[in-house]
Amino acid sequence: MFESCIEDLHRLLPGRVSTAMAVRMHHGTDVSFHKPFPPDAVVFPHTTEEVAGVAALCAGYQVPMIPFGTGTSCEGHIAALQGGVCIDLSGLCGILRVSPEDLDVTVQAGVTRKQLNEHLRDTGLFFPIDPGADASLGGMASTRASGTNAVRYGTMRENVLGLTVVLADGRIIRTGGRARKSAAGYDLTRLFVGSEGTLGIVTEVTLRLYGIPETISAAVCPFPTLSGAVDTAIAVIQSQIPVARMELLDAVQMRATNLYSKLDHTEQPTLFFEFHGTEAGVAEQVAQVRAIAAEAGGTDFRWASKPEERSRLWQARHDAWWAALALRPGAKGWPTDVCVPISRLAECIEETSRDIAENRLIAPVLGHVGDGNFHLCFVLDPDDTDEMRRVRAVNGRMISRAIAMGGTCTGEHGIGYGKIDELREEHGGAVEVMAAVKQALDPKGLMNPGKLFGPTP
Amino acid sequence: MFESCIEDLHRLLPGRVSTAMAVRMHHGTDVSFHKPFPPDAVVFPHTTEEVAGVAALCAGYQVPMIPFGTGTSCEGHIAALQGGVCIDLSGLCGILRVSPEDLDVTVQAGVTRKQLNEHLRDTGLFFPIDPGADASLGGMASTRASGTNAVRYGTMRENVLGLTVVLADGRIIRTGGRARKSAAGYDLTRLFVGSEGTLGIVTEVTLRLYGIPETISAAVCPFPTLSGAVDTAIAVIQSQIPVARMELLDAVQMRATNLYSKLDHTEQPTLFFEFHGTEAGVAEQVAQVRAIAAEAGGTDFRWASKPEERSRLWQARHDAWWAALALRPGAKGWPTDVCVPISRLAECIEETSRDIAENRLIAPVLGHVGDGNFHLCFVLDPDDTDEMRRVRAVNGRMISRAIAMGGTCTGEHGIGYGKIDELREEHGGAVEVMAAVKQALDPKGLMNPGKLFGPTP
Repeated sequence: MFESCIEDLHRLLPGRVSTAMAVRMHHGTDVSFHKPFPPDAVVFPHTTEEVAGVAALCAGYQVPMIPFGTGTSCEGHIAALQGGVCIDLSGLCGILRVSPEDLDVTVQAGVTRKQLNEHLRDTGLFFPIDPGADASLGGMASTRASGTNAVRYGTMRENVLGLTVVLADGRIIRTGGRARKSAAGYDLTRLFVGSEGTLGIVTEVTLRLYGIPETISAAVCPFPTLSGAVDTAIAVIQSQIPVARMELLDAVQMRATNLYSKLDHTEQPTLFFEFHGTEAGVAEQVAQVRAIAAEAGGTDFRWASKPEERSRLWQARHDAWWAALALRPGAKGWPTDVCVPISRLAECIEETSRDIAENRLIAPVLGHVGDGNFHLCFVLDPDDTDEMRRVRAVNGRMISRAIAMGGTCTGEHGIGYGKIDELREEHGGAVEVMAAVKQALDPKGLMNPGKLFGPTP
Repeated sequence: MFESCIEDLHRLLPGRVSTAMAVRMHHGTDVSFHKPFPPDAVVFPHTTEEVAGVAALCAGYQVPMIPFGTGTSCEGHIAALQGGVCIDLSGLCGILRVSPEDLDVTVQAGVTRKQLNEHLRDTGLFFPIDPGADASLGGMASTRASGTNAVRYGTMRENVLGLTVVLADGRIIRTGGRARKSAAGYDLTRLFVGSEGTLGIVTEVTLRLYGIPETISAAVCPFPTLSGAVDTAIAVIQSQIPVARMELLDAVQMRATNLYSKLDHTEQPTLFFEFHGTEAGVAEQVAQVRAIAAEAGGTDFRWASKPEERSRLWQARHDAWWAALALRPGAKGWPTDVCVPISRLAECIEETSRDIAENRLIAPVLGHVGDGNFHLCFVLDPDDTDEMRRVRAVNGRMISRAIAMGGTCTGEHGIGYGKIDELREEHGGAVEVMAAVKQALDPKGLMNPGKLFGPTP
């Protein structure tokens, strides 16, 4: 029967169906440590209607469907756990509409965040959400992506106005709209945002845009202690200073970043800041932040006001993951993240750092501390069973710690098949409600099966 | 069988069950023009567990349940269309936790927005969402409420961090959490926010708070023309000036407000502004807005910087509905609202105003124009069938106009049983997905039946 499905797909998308092992393997592999699972076939549609055709066909054959953006997720989101057809959305690459007068845009799902910002260059507008990778906007919507600007501009949750979605049976729906607010019915937009392809396939995304600020200024400031850096971040948030970015890199990560990005920053716990606003507004924010940082020993601000200096700085931040990996040649990386109420951030990071040290692991701490969100990047040898045991234990304790503090098992990486038990640990009986919604929208269980709800393979 | 249900309710909540006609009628009547439908009984629980007990009991008897906050909704949300038990949540009136260090709070559903702000008075924090009425926070979550501050602070969509919900079968779940962002599973919080009691009963709400700004300044500015006022609002938004409030009242509404609130403003189309920020930040915003307003003939800014002056101003704005009603003694009011992309706002308001005039109706135009959201308040004689025909036609045309512009049939009032056809007009096939979610969470159709999906009674 699966052969008939493939034949039908070839008829539907001639020359745009692949069953080559290299293509399949690529499409079952994300950037994480999780084991890849190749799909049985990969299709390359160009339009929402073609995606709908693929979905209807797969539904008829009861074949699983896995939407694919750029494959840069972190928790095994695209692994074809039960085989099936991977729907590569990179061919949906059109920017359908830019409305500078309404500060919004509609793009097809395969457009990446950098492509969008390149396209916007002459409009004076930008789209702020920036996960480390140059991810596709459909994928970013599906995983509720976030990044360094979230402290000021929010995540995909706040910045998606509407979606076009292909449902599990091939129906096409539009959610949301272009109004800035609406009280018309259930918020399907935010139901699909973060649903990780388990409820449908996002094919178009309408996004909020922002004017490029009159003044942008960035700075790096090392602190004598990790707690000094974190306490500064907490105080900035509690003072409601509207920083655009506020990123923590611990001493290990600073060393990795210096080596990888050929920089010469002090190798101490460091905050990376960016300030957006009018000239006077930025000056005011900077003065407030400097005063707070000084109390924690952070006095050595190093400024990057020119665009190229800022780009270099933030590229180094975005390359943190690759820099961490380079610390231990031949090692694999396992990125993980949690997010807690800001008042508990210092405690959560410090206990976690202690746990890493006590377990003799390499795991730089970095993150979007303005949101209460931080990452570990375990740099590990997957063949060392004792090390893996310690890694899993440290990760598990960090997640339980975050949940006990009122936080979440993942601020931005999502569940995939990597955090299924942790989703239950965090949400308890609410997971049954999520499963009921899944059952209602995907009764045959064909949409990215095995994600969120398990079983863990 | 219904008698047994009532008896069981009396056993569950001794002295807190009423079947008195006056109580029932009060609980089936909102502030709108829509026909009230009394429930068969009203219960007054005090805790989430008591609500769960009521829900389990009603589920067993297959009796409809209608959650009730303050009864200040506008589209017949609380009408007991199929009878059943109204669950009055005013007894859930505890403020469970305030965390100034995390800028959040957890309240029981019956706490009103004014009660919360009163409680917060000594903390330096406030909760900004302010629908006209002093609504309950559970009701505001359930209707995705908004108000004058939404242009700066967002609506309930952006400001609810988590919920406790009693499901249709009496299960209690918690959605969301206290982390500022999370990628852990479906966004159930935003699924329940705005679901109008059709998926479950909100019993606790965790909300974001904000620091009271260092400087607050408010002003009123009349314009020679309606388009001048609206164009000013559009330009302020397009310039991304972070105004905290920007409200339009047309000339009819200004006359009504002067009469009702004993004020002496110029009776022309008028914008009410409020600016929040540091002293320098507010000065900068004010200068920018004055320059924009001047181009449209708005030069006569009248300032209210003292707290009591500002209170009087905003109380007058919040009383607009009562002021409009007072224009025509003995008349009834029908409030309605739409929301459009900001670039279409002038066109939408002007065409609607012309339609009102051509149909010889009394319907002041006012609204949260910074969001692209505006209201009509039809002041009408429900016994005049010809007038009612004209009112319905003008309302229908305004909604179709807004939807055609990429907007929504309601920015903040919701669907209830008043806009069921309009929900379908706006969302098409997506309404089937909403209905599938409803069916999954409330298979017996007991939660506030007849709302959102109809049939219209």
